[in-house]
Amino acid sequence: MRVGDRHFRSIWLEQDGWSVGAIDQRRLPHDFVTVRLATSDAAADAIRSMLVRGAPLIGATAAYGMALAMRADPSDAALDEVHHTLIGTRPTAINLRWALDEMRTLLRPLPPQQRTAAAYARATAIAEEDIAINQGIGRNGLELIEKIAATKKQGERINVLTHCNAGWLATVDWGTATAPVYLAHDRGHSIHVWVDETRPRNQGASLTAWELGHHGVPHTVIPDNTGGHLMQHGMVDLVIVGTDRVTADGDVCNKIGTYLKALAAYDNGVPFYVALPSPTIDFSVADGVREIPIEQRGAEEVTHMTGQTADGRIETVRIVPDGSPVANYGFDVTPARLVTGLITERGVLKPDRAALAAAFPERTAAAAE
Amino acid sequence: MRVGDRHFRSIWLEQDGWSVGAIDQRRLPHDFVTVRLATSDAAADAIRSMLVRGAPLIGATAAYGMALAMRADPSDAALDEVHHTLIGTRPTAINLRWALDEMRTLLRPLPPQQRTAAAYARATAIAEEDIAINQGIGRNGLELIEKIAATKKQGERINVLTHCNAGWLATVDWGTATAPVYLAHDRGHSIHVWVDETRPRNQGASLTAWELGHHGVPHTVIPDNTGGHLMQHGMVDLVIVGTDRVTADGDVCNKIGTYLKALAAYDNGVPFYVALPSPTIDFSVADGVREIPIEQRGAEEVTHMTGQTADGRIETVRIVPDGSPVANYGFDVTPARLVTGLITERGVLKPDRAALAAAFPERTAAAAE
Repeated sequence: MRVGDRHFRSIWLEQDGWSVGAIDQRRLPHDFVTVRLATSDAAADAIRSMLVRGAPLIGATAAYGMALAMRADPSDAALDEVHHTLIGTRPTAINLRWALDEMRTLLRPLPPQQRTAAAYARATAIAEEDIAINQGIGRNGLELIEKIAATKKQGERINVLTHCNAGWLATVDWGTATAPVYLAHDRGHSIHVWVDETRPRNQGASLTAWELGHHGVPHTVIPDNTGGHLMQHGMVDLVIVGTDRVTADGDVCNKIGTYLKALAAYDNGVPFYVALPSPTIDFSVADGVREIPIEQRGAEEVTHMTGQTADGRIETVRIVPDGSPVANYGFDVTPARLVTGLITERGVLKPDRAALAAAFPERTAAAAE
Repeated sequence: MRVGDRHFRSIWLEQDGWSVGAIDQRRLPHDFVTVRLATSDAAADAIRSMLVRGAPLIGATAAYGMALAMRADPSDAALDEVHHTLIGTRPTAINLRWALDEMRTLLRPLPPQQRTAAAYARATAIAEEDIAINQGIGRNGLELIEKIAATKKQGERINVLTHCNAGWLATVDWGTATAPVYLAHDRGHSIHVWVDETRPRNQGASLTAWELGHHGVPHTVIPDNTGGHLMQHGMVDLVIVGTDRVTADGDVCNKIGTYLKALAAYDNGVPFYVALPSPTIDFSVADGVREIPIEQRGAEEVTHMTGQTADGRIETVRIVPDGSPVANYGFDVTPARLVTGLITERGVLKPDRAALAAAFPERTAAAAE
């Protein structure tokens, strides 16, 4: 997507043909800084330090990290070592493990002198596959937006509400929840996005607002408390969020607070859509509320806030009384009954077992084995 | 309520018998600083600068401000001037106008030499009446809590969720939503409060957490996104919030985000109570969503955050990209259908026209005139 008048992806091969470029997302939204990763250790550090984040982007970074390792030393020992190192950078990231296993399975049978070229080719393919999936989500979501656009007066804007960052910064390009928005905007639809701040890590305010702004998409940042009021007053046409995991019955695990927006959408007859690449569907889980364990994260994400002072310094300030305990649940589960549809690369699906099984017969066959 | 081992109110007459003490609430939660107001201008500044805030506390501060003015000059001209000055400090505050009109109506017919004593007496009575109302709310809410306590195992804690600050800092003492909590805690019930941070002004994290902590009430600060998840998992026994205005039909206008918590409570069968002094009921309004105008506040409350640095300085940092627009709606309306009951000084009422009219016949008679 655009940053000013240039096009960027969140990760790319540099012009030298082997080193890897990325955006230092820790410095957003205040500074736009790109970095050049020239070793697998640098790639591992980038994942570990959250210079890159978002499941698809982590997977692509890890894949490129293996290519960088093979370029330095294509031996079996080096292959095992880099697999081990990279998998330890974010132990719970499913895409990370998937990308690394995929790469090792491909590279292991090859003679060492062929491994570097094969690794770069497969890493690039992983990145391109992510983009193709997101474009598919974008096209399918665009149909929903265009149906709403058809009900609007000339020039009247379409209002989308989103939560957290399921944008291009979390993927290789386009994003998931944002793909339909970028596509609609690029086709000339008058689209506007209400961006939930998304406490406590503020990914909405710091990442989604930044990427929409730089691509030129009209948007407004709102506190997470605001969406219900907007929906009561007809100011939201549809909600599109991303997800970390969708169950076989269509329950949606996503950033904490998503469930509250789904309730408000349901109460006000606003369509509530979830955008997802199909690997996000976990056919081994049925009831999301009962079965999905919810990660608790560090207290300092709630007690402290980082931002930029008037004179340009980055400062962290405490905003909760010293001594007051805090709780920081990372995710919640939105029951399928509140979800209008799942926007996947294979179409917009009803959030239920039959629709998911019909759309992904190969996955359900595998899960049944 | 307690601050450490001392008892405080949010406003008090100093030992000299005429100057007025208050807590500088702008410096909470990081510094506890009391100030002495010795002139009506100082009282006006305290209201204007939000050194004091909360409708009942503003009313009491204004009443004492008039007493300070009469002490300096009890003439008719001074009486009119201080009324004019104080009413301009927070033009939309209903309690402020009520307290000032009440004081002027009392003082105007008196000979000037009697006005000072009468003004202090009435200001003190206004403060005491607020405390009596809140204690009434506390006793009525305590009955609800004790019913829940009776269903718990020995030692199992009762979990209340609250939003924003309807605590003693917003009133003269006890608070509204917190009065039942303080009473239950003081009677030895094992009560714990989930405190919504309450973006964008963070009154939950900075004020409610501070006052609960200093009184010794167990509590946990949570991002506003969290309550739905907690309710899904049985971690909330009841919700108690305050309100700025309740309509004749029982709709509840309160801090933005209250509606989302009411939806989650309803979806999970968690009782949702609203605590209010009866003057908060506006019998001239029926449909809160349609009829109550919602104030939009300054962007900087969303774009910036103030807190304390590690070395003790108070700093303000920007947390939204420069150039991203923000919206800042101050309140939302929770429809009566989502409200379990209204905890007033006259009992816990059903949120509907008949129940409110029966409890406050003198008010509905006046509204019909």
